[in-house]
Order: sequence, then C-alpha cells, then structure tokens
Amino acid sequence: MIKVGIVGATGYTGAELIRILQGHPEVKIEVLTSQSYAGQEIAQVFPQLSPLELPVLIEQEQDKLTEVDVAFLALPHGVSMPIAARLLSAGVKVIDLGADFRLKDAVAYQTWYGLEHSYPQLLAEAVYGLPELKREQIAAARLVANPGCYPTSILLALAPALKHGLLHLDTIIADSKSGVSGAGRGVSLGVHFSEVNENFKAYNVGQHRHTAEIEQELAVLAGKPLTITFTPHLVPMTRGILSTVYAKLRQNLEEEEIRAIYRDFYRGEPFVKVLEAGQYPQTKWCAGSNRAFIGLKKDARTGRLILVSAIDNLVKGASGQAVQNMNILFGLPETMGLEETGLWP
Amino acid sequence: MIKVGIVGATGYTGAELIRILQGHPEVKIEVLTSQSYAGQEIAQVFPQLSPLELPVLIEQEQDKLTEVDVAFLALPHGVSMPIAARLLSAGVKVIDLGADFRLKDAVAYQTWYGLEHSYPQLLAEAVYGLPELKREQIAAARLVANPGCYPTSILLALAPALKHGLLHLDTIIADSKSGVSGAGRGVSLGVHFSEVNENFKAYNVGQHRHTAEIEQELAVLAGKPLTITFTPHLVPMTRGILSTVYAKLRQNLEEEEIRAIYRDFYRGEPFVKVLEAGQYPQTKWCAGSNRAFIGLKKDARTGRLILVSAIDNLVKGASGQAVQNMNILFGLPETMGLEETGLWP
Amino acid sequence: MIKVGIVGATGYTGAELIRILQGHPEVKIEVLTSQSYAGQEIAQVFPQLSPLELPVLIEQEQDKLTEVDVAFLALPHGVSMPIAARLLSAGVKVIDLGADFRLKDAVAYQTWYGLEHSYPQLLAEAVYGLPELKREQIAAARLVANPGCYPTSILLALAPALKHGLLHLDTIIADSKSGVSGAGRGVSLGVHFSEVNENFKAYNVGQHRHTAEIEQELAVLAGKPLTITFTPHLVPMTRGILSTVYAKLRQNLEEEEIRAIYRDFYRGEPFVKVLEAGQYPQTKWCAGSNRAFIGLKKDARTGRLILVSAIDNLVKGASGQAVQNMNILFGLPETMGLEETGLWP
Amino acid sequence: MIKVGIVGATGYTGAELIRILQGHPEVKIEVLTSQSYAGQEIAQVFPQLSPLELPVLIEQEQDKLTEVDVAFLALPHGVSMPIAARLLSAGVKVIDLGADFRLKDAVAYQTWYGLEHSYPQLLAEAVYGLPELKREQIAAARLVANPGCYPTSILLALAPALKHGLLHLDTIIADSKSGVSGAGRGVSLGVHFSEVNENFKAYNVGQHRHTAEIEQELAVLAGKPLTITFTPHLVPMTRGILSTVYAKLRQNLEEEEIRAIYRDFYRGEPFVKVLEAGQYPQTKWCAGSNRAFIGLKKDARTGRLILVSAIDNLVKGASGQAVQNMNILFGLPETMGLEETGLWP
Repeated sequence: MIKVGIVGATGYTGAELIRILQGHPEVKIEVLTSQSYAGQEIAQVFPQLSPLELPVLIEQEQDKLTEVDVAFLALPHGVSMPIAARLLSAGVKVIDLGADFRLKDAVAYQTWYGLEHSYPQLLAEAVYGLPELKREQIAAARLVANPGCYPTSILLALAPALKHGLLHLDTIIADSKSGVSGAGRGVSLGVHFSEVNENFKAYNVGQHRHTAEIEQELAVLAGKPLTITFTPHLVPMTRGILSTVYAKLRQNLEEEEIRAIYRDFYRGEPFVKVLEAGQYPQTKWCAGSNRAFIGLKKDARTGRLILVSAIDNLVKGASGQAVQNMNILFGLPETMGLEETGLWP
Repeated sequence: MIKVGIVGATGYTGAELIRILQGHPEVKIEVLTSQSYAGQEIAQVFPQLSPLELPVLIEQEQDKLTEVDVAFLALPHGVSMPIAARLLSAGVKVIDLGADFRLKDAVAYQTWYGLEHSYPQLLAEAVYGLPELKREQIAAARLVANPGCYPTSILLALAPALKHGLLHLDTIIADSKSGVSGAGRGVSLGVHFSEVNENFKAYNVGQHRHTAEIEQELAVLAGKPLTITFTPHLVPMTRGILSTVYAKLRQNLEEEEIRAIYRDFYRGEPFVKVLEAGQYPQTKWCAGSNRAFIGLKKDARTGRLILVSAIDNLVKGASGQAVQNMNILFGLPETMGLEETGLWP
Repeated sequence: MIKVGIVGATGYTGAELIRILQGHPEVKIEVLTSQSYAGQEIAQVFPQLSPLELPVLIEQEQDKLTEVDVAFLALPHGVSMPIAARLLSAGVKVIDLGADFRLKDAVAYQTWYGLEHSYPQLLAEAVYGLPELKREQIAAARLVANPGCYPTSILLALAPALKHGLLHLDTIIADSKSGVSGAGRGVSLGVHFSEVNENFKAYNVGQHRHTAEIEQELAVLAGKPLTITFTPHLVPMTRGILSTVYAKLRQNLEEEEIRAIYRDFYRGEPFVKVLEAGQYPQTKWCAGSNRAFIGLKKDARTGRLILVSAIDNLVKGASGQAVQNMNILFGLPETMGLEETGLWP
Repeated sequence: MIKVGIVGATGYTGAELIRILQGHPEVKIEVLTSQSYAGQEIAQVFPQLSPLELPVLIEQEQDKLTEVDVAFLALPHGVSMPIAARLLSAGVKVIDLGADFRLKDAVAYQTWYGLEHSYPQLLAEAVYGLPELKREQIAAARLVANPGCYPTSILLALAPALKHGLLHLDTIIADSKSGVSGAGRGVSLGVHFSEVNENFKAYNVGQHRHTAEIEQELAVLAGKPLTITFTPHLVPMTRGILSTVYAKLRQNLEEEEIRAIYRDFYRGEPFVKVLEAGQYPQTKWCAGSNRAFIGLKKDARTGRLILVSAIDNLVKGASGQAVQNMNILFGLPETMGLEETGLWP
C-alpha cells in the first residue's frame, strides 16, 4: 500500500483527493493536514465523511508528513514551495496541485504571481503533469506540477492540432467557462450564492494567471513560442469547465480528417473521448469523473477550427489528474481508483 | 458473477443503476431494455457512458431478459406488474423500483393509483425492501418492492421512535422536499428549467400517493394503524430529499435519551448515520451516495420531536437501495458496490 | 415629495429599497448611508444602478440624515436602536427593517437576541408594521417595526384562521423555506455558492429568533398566548419564502367554508391573494413583487388545515412592506410604487 | 391610450410584454391571443398575473385583433408572416419578435430557416428594430422586425468599432452564453431541469440561425460584407445573455481611446452603458431591465479587442426592445415603461 499525505485536506481539492483515494485499492491515507482545523477529525469539517476511517488532521509542519511515500499539496500558490523542498529532501514524492512548479521560468512566475520563486532549481526538475502529453517524464519524476484546471481543458483540446501543425499559431483564442468550485473554499462576495446564482460574468479578462502556463505548454507542442487570448468566465454551477477554443486552419482539411487526427492522437487514452460529428460535450457528463470530452467543428465559412472540451475542474482539472499522476509515479494502472463514470443527472 | 437485467434503462433510476452496477465487482450487466431506444447503444442516449462496455438496448419483451439472475424494473407504475409476473415464472428474481408491489392491499392500490392490480397474489409475496427494517425477509424473497424515495426518508426518520413507542401516533406530520430528478426524465412544463429554477413550491398537498406506503409501513412499526399528514415540495436542485418530520412526544424524555435510542437502533448500519446534537443533515452530503443522515431535536417548548433526514433520492431513495437489496438477495456484503461517499462540493 | 433616507444602503434590503423607491412618484431619495463605502457613489458598489441619479454614500452619523422626512433602517439588529432614537428626536419618522423594535417585551428581546435593549420605552411606542393587520396603528406611528420575512409569511397564512378561532392553538407547526438572500450580503461559508447550490438543509431548528415575533403576534390574533414549532430551511435560490403551516381544526368545517373566511378576511387587500382549491403558490410568482399568495387545504384524513404561503423575502418580507408602511404613514395610496407584478420566468 | 394586441401571449416573451406593458402609462392591452389557451383567463395560465385586469385570451384569427393600434407578434418563425400581412392590411402597426422579417434576403431566409418566405415584399419594407442603430427608420415604419437576443448583444458590442473601422473584419468571433428562457416555453429534454442544472454546453456550433442576421447588420455597419464565427452556449440560469466578442485591431489604439469612441457612440443612449477600465458586466445587472452593459479590454499581447456585453434576453433581447420600438413608433419618450433597474440580487 502506498502511504499518502494530503496537505491542505479541508479545501475542495483536498476533499476531492480524500473522496477519490479512499476508494483506491493500493492507497492508505496516512496524513491529512490543515492549518485551520489541526487537531480535529476531518468528519467535523465534512460530516459526510464520518463513516470513513481517516487520520486526525495535523499541522503540515509535523514530522509525520515526511514519512509518507507521496504527498499531495492542495495549497494556495506561494505556500507549496518550501513544503515541497522539505518533503523532497526527506525522500517523499510530491504532487503539487497549486501553481508553484508549473512555470519553467522563475521570472515568468514572478511576473504572473507577483512573488519571487524561492526554489528556482526545483522548477527545472518539476514535470508538468499532464499524463496524455508527458507520461514518460512523469513516471521518472520526484516532483509533479499538476496542471491548472483551465490549462488542462485547453491543452487537451489543442494538443493534436498543434502537434500536427494544423493551426495559425497567432489566431488562438480560448474562451473558458468554469463552475464556482474552481475559486476554492475561501469566502468572498465573489462566491456569495446570491451574487453568483442566476448570473454569468467574465473575469480577469486577458490577464488570468493560467495564461502563462497554457502558453508555455502550447509552445512545447508547437515547437515555437506563441501568445493566445484567454478569457475565463464564471458559470452558476459548482463543478465543470467547458472551453471553446478557436483558431484558423492552415490547410483546407475536411472536418473528418481533423477528427481522424484527434482520434489517432488520443487512441488508447482511457480518459479522453473525441466525440462524433455534430456532438459537443456537456460539463455534467464529467461530474465526479476523470474524463475529458472533446468535440470539434470546422467552421467552413471562416476557415476556423472550433474545439469544445469539457472536464470536471476538481477531477481531471485537479485531484483526479493528481491521482492519475500518482498511479504513473508508482507504476500502477493509470485508471486505478478513477474508473467512476460521471454522476447523471 | 450475477447476471443482471435493467428494464427501463434510459430513465434516471435506470441510468443510476448502470452507474452503480458497472462498479460492482460481482455483477455483469447482461440486459438493458428501453422501449423508446431499443436497437441503440446506451452511449447514444447517455454519451457520458461511452467508455463502458454495455449491451445494446433491447425491448423488454425479448427472451434474453428471462435469462438473467435478477432484473431491476425501473418503470412507471402499472407497467411492472405483468413483467414481474413473467420474470418470476422464468425463475428470475425481481426488484421493482416502481410502486406496483409496495402496497399489501390491492384495494388501497386501486384507490391511490387509480387502476386495478392485476396480480394481487404477488402483493402478498412481495417484500417491502427497506433493508434496515426487513433484512431477513428480503434475504428470502423472490420479489422485492423497492421503497419510494419519500417513504425511505420518512421511515428511516421515524422507525426508532415508533418502535419504542415514543410518539403520539395521531400527531405525525412529514414535510418533505425533493430535487427534480424524482419526477423522472419525462418532459413537462413542471420540470422546465425556467419554471423550476429560482422557484420553490408544494405539490400534491395532502394527497401524494406515497402517503399510502408510508402509513402502511409506519403501522407495522407502531403495531397499529395510523394516519399522517404528508406534504411534498419541489426544490430547485437535481438530487436529494430532505424530510422534516414532527410529532408529539408521549413521555418527557431528554433529547440525549432519544438520540441514544436512535443510535442503538441504527448501530452497525453502514448506511444510516445519526448526527450529533445541534447537527442537521444537508442533502448534498449524500449526493451520489447510499447514505442517510438523521438529525433530531427535542423542541422542549412544545413537547415535539423534530426529525430531519437526508438522502439522495436516486441512490438510497431508489437505485442504491435496489442494489443494497440485490446484495442481500444474493448473500453478498450489503455495502458491495455502494461504498462511495457523496460528491462534495 | 417625501425626503427619504436609507441607512445601510449597500446590503440587500437597502439595495431593494433603492430599486423600489427610485420608481416611486412621491419620493426623493435624499440620503444613502454606508459605513463601509462612505464617500463612494452607490454605482461603485452596484454598477447596475449607474444610470440613476442618487446621492453619494455618507456615514450614518452625519447630520444630513436627520433632515429627511422618513428613514429606513436596513441594519443588523442591535445597531438600529440608538439611530432610531436620534432620528425620532429630530422629528424623523423611522421604519426599522431589523429586529430591534419588533418585540414588545425587552426581556424577550434579551433572551432571543442576547443583548440588552437600550431603548425599552421605544418598544412600547413602536408599531409592528404588518399593514394587513395593523393599518390604523401604522398610520398614526412615528416608529414602525417592519416584520421579519418568516413572520410575514406565517402571520399572513394564519391570521384569518386565528381571528376566527378555527385552530387548536397548541398544534401549530410552521415549516418555512427561504432563499439565500435572507441571510444578507455578509460573506460566510454558509452562503458560499459551492456549499449552497444543489443542496437543501434545515437550520436553527426549533430555536430561530423569529419564533418570538411570530408567537407574539399570533397571540394578539388569538387573544391568548401560544407556542409554535418553527423550522426554517435554506433553499438553493436567491429570493422567496414559502411557509407550509399545519394545525388541527377545532370544528369540522368544509374546505370551502375556510376558504370563504380567508377570502373575506383579505377582501380588498391589494397584496394578498387567496388561491383556488387545489392551487398552491410558487415563490417565483412573487419575485420582485410585493404580493403574497396563500393556498389552503383541509386534510380531511387527519383533521388538519394545511396553509401554504409565498412571498418575496426582500419585498413583502422586507423592503416592499417597508414602502407599503411608508405609504400608510404619509397618507398615500398603499400600492404606490409597488404595482409591479413578479418577474416570470 | 395606445391599443395593443399581443399575439402569442402565453409564451415567455408574451408574458414579458404583459409585465412591461401593464405598467406603461400610455398603453391599454386590448387583445391577448393564444391558440392553446383561447377562452381562458390569462391568470389561469399565469396565476401571478391574477390581480391584473386583462382581456380573456382569444384566437389570433379573431377580428378583434385587427382593431388595435399595434400588435406584438410573439410567435415561432414561419407563423408570423401571414398574420403580419393581415394586420398591416388592416392598418395595424406590427412589431414581430420572431425571425420572419429580420433578413432582407428571402433566399437567405430559406437557407437558414428551411422554408420559403411567403411575403418577400414585406422583407424590403420591414425595419430591423435596433433603436440605437436605426431610430429614424423605425419611427417611420409600419413593420418592425425586432432583433434576436444574441444579435442584440453582439451588435451593440461591435457597432462602435465597426462604424469607426477599428477591426480586421475577417477576425470576428462571437462566443455567446444564454440563459434557458431563450429557448422558449416549449417542453423538451433540452430544457428539462435535471439535464440543464449544474451543466454547461455549447450548441448549434458554427451554424446557429442568428448568424445570418448578425452578419447582415454587421455588414451594414462595416459598409461591406463579412463572415463571423458565432458559438452559442447554454447557461444554467433563466435570464440573461453575455457575449464575449473578439477581433483584431487594425491600428494600435490605446484602450482608453477605444473606450472614448464607445462612450461617444453611445452618448445619450438611455439603455446602453459603457463600463470603466477593468470592469465587465454581469448578466444579473440587467435582470428584468432593458439595459445593456458593455465592457472592453485591449489585449495588448495579441492586438485583439475583447468586448463583453450583457443584456436580459427577454427584455433588451426581446420584449423590452419591442416596447422601446413601440415608443419610437408612437412618438413617445423611448424610456416610457422601461425605467426599471434590474432585480438585484
């Protein structure tokens, strides 16, 4: 059994890790940390977990955390850096669900996140944990930077097209829509039910931090740097991200030729499904599941490719993908603990 | 492996049976029927199920249905009767998720459901499948009448109090609130998003059909007939039932004495959790799970007991309970395939 | 033109007062106060109000507030007391939307609200502002205690029955369901979208503060003291309260006789509509409107009367009723500024 | 008083017309038609309207309809054509809220709507009723084609930029998100609460009928033909449309220069508000109001202009705009009956 620690167990991605891992046949949750609730049972924070046998919440500074095989860091950016360094020194593998190790460039980190990176040497080592693109590198890693939710949805949508050079790189626009859980469990007027319900808005227009991570990985796929326009929106629902991505096609391919490229690219991938012509995904198809669905349309009138991808932001966009990465790190079947279909309706 | 058939696989309780059973280690889904979609893949109806290997949808008349070990009937009331009879004759065990075999009294069936019961002899044989109350009888049954969603939530809340004679039987009021999935997948103005969203209403006030079933089983618990007032309400959410139940206490017990009776009654039950003083359940604690949570309050000012219970109407209120019954029928651990905690948030 | 001040203009009841009063033909909004946003334009807080010409937000201590004809206090309980006293001294009429002047008994105030009442003499003077019950007293008042949202919905449902002695007074149970805006604009985990959406719960079971106010006014109607059981619930919607009220009938009246009593009681009331047999209200019928709808059912099987009432908690349950009271205070037609029908869908 | 007829009064745009017009000081609603509910009171269909004095529903064939001054047609496309012709012959002004008279080209109508236009001569006469762009033509019209909801939101967002030649015309992408009421009151699985709630999807990707109307009017603004990419999405909310529109800037203008152009273009417009830098609209700001809010961002990294517009699809996107057009037709102040601010929260 793999001994697991979850650092930041009382946020939404932490809770989702518990939900997934408690059903994983090769995992034992050994440590749960919470700075706010240390000393309490997790069932005092989440009564719905009361039937499970889980360790008492402790502070992340405790030694016990260094005795696990792998630690998931479900923390705000800026906080993960020193903890990751400490755990790696102790021989613990680290999967960071935050943003601290996703960017390769410490300067870019400072630009987008507004603070200096204190462990730039770890940036070089960290592997960007999108299994469909970097399976081999993840398998050999000590430190996995779990991708952001928006980037996961956008990279999966664009990867085949960029790998095959189908697109004009300066025409990419990603218009993404997210459920509210992506904002975390912290309280603010922006997540007040009465302000979000029966409402829809764009936010961080043209300047969301995930832009840096998306462009970095798209550049790897394309083999050259590029810039995109990225606009996130808030949907009055809890879970799910749908990204609608637009770009000009370089060649006049038929839609079915493009679909064939996509099918080929994702052949054998257990968590990515390319849909039929005229079929587009719905976020609820993924609720609680690690699956991603991709629909595509050639807009023949304008020569654009329209890609529509859907994931559950807390699963494939966070905790599920983290478990998928853990499975790879430990040589387990990649779908172990992640077979669940979405909850419908 | 138990060979399973699901009759009416494209409704919500049918889809939920598929979701639960595809993760059950001792089950193979052999037959899925649908009168509307016969001949199609289930993934054409529910694309989110596309990665699963499932049989093609067939009509319920086909012989193949009689070759399974157990059939779940997820059909409107009135339709199950002849199918159940046919399957039982063929040696198939039957778990009916509809209302056709819940009432012991064919006259009451006709009164509440407006049609004559064509197999009254099966009414006597059928076991009302609430495992926490009738485990032994279910184990020996051929035909299980899976309880309604409202009755499950109300019976679990009242059972310990009635068994212990705590209540004045003529003072029971059940005020229940259900998500919209309880109305099924059929279309009507009453389930139109724009009419339900940001709206709350009572319906079938004082005359909902589940009243008969609730009173029948409460009478068994109390050892004498009784009538209750039952009011269902529609909540703008998809899943979940919360019932708030009121009754006068016969004796002046302390709240903690009552709680101890409840804890004792449900000791060892894997799916029922009695909450702490001052703690009341939320429907979302059960989303996708087979658990029931019960909170209780002694209203000392009025001498009433207030019970609050929450379940997922599609799981403990339908398909999950049906699988729990199947586990009992086949001598399997009762929690097999049902270990999942609720989806939160 | 009546010069109006709104104290606490940036909460939900304050914003709703602005929305209603800006369309009132006899009102000029002269003062808006906010302790958090003083010095700013209201349109900086609520951009949707940007086209309106409204005064800059000031602190409630400023002298300007004492120059209005009437002040609406939209403040947390405990805060209104000294402000009301100061304004009354300056000759300003006061309509308090909070709880500080609703209870006649300073001891009860301390019991339920946990702090000593500092102006008990004003309690005697204040008129409980439910126009359908106290129109004449309101007309003569200086200080109106605007009723709570739950009490409004419950009192309107029960008033005719209590006035006519139809009910056993010790059998009254009010099961109420409210949208989230009733909790105000303050942030907390309890109003976090991801915790409220697709969820339903009871809260403050058997001990909500509104109980005191409901019982006080029911006692006036009944002519003798009584206690009720009151359970509030939180619905995943923004606006609306629906109360389902149960009580034993003293006599064996026909349902239509009871309906006739209700119709007679509310004859000519512009804001209260008694529904047909078999018809029950929906909260959305009132969204944005000052109307209350009442449905009723005689549950002949149990001898109970079931009452179902619906209001918009922010309109008839707060700001709309406050404007109705203002109209009475100033001798205007009671519907002035309040003619709007609900928003549907 | 203007005598008004509403043809198709029991759909959502019909109900919204009643809501708005019953508060309009210069209007008397003389005729309400409904093919499904003819002979009934409108309050039987919409009980929330019960206090209003409104005419009994009649069939649209009745002569009484030809005696009004102006008729609003709130009908499915294809149905309006003969009724409009008949009413115009009788001297009645017609405002069609459907799609039958929006396209100037009968061939394009047939291409996009799949049926032949039976009154092509009326296409030439009809005025596309977007008051901010065509006020003078509307004033002189007999037949107004009220714009679609998506087109209204997109045209208002792009008009200033196109009029001033700011954009590369072949780079325009409109990504729109609509509440469910835009789909009308008809029942289908696509508007079933359980399928829409907690869900988000794209639909009619690259082929929505509104594309034709948007391109036609953008071409007028730009002075030359163009094609756009338009993707509509369904948001789990009832009201509201938000459009996010992208295009490449032709010149390197500063964001504030662009904003100045927008402010200048919409100066004096009562229903269009251009927001501050960094401020983006929310659909709920417009709930129940005829206002449109526009935010804009220059994405300096990519040289694109990002426009975000929000309206209530049933008001500025349908019935409110229709009343605005009526006001223009009859020489009334354009805001009459439409002064209401949005409902918040």
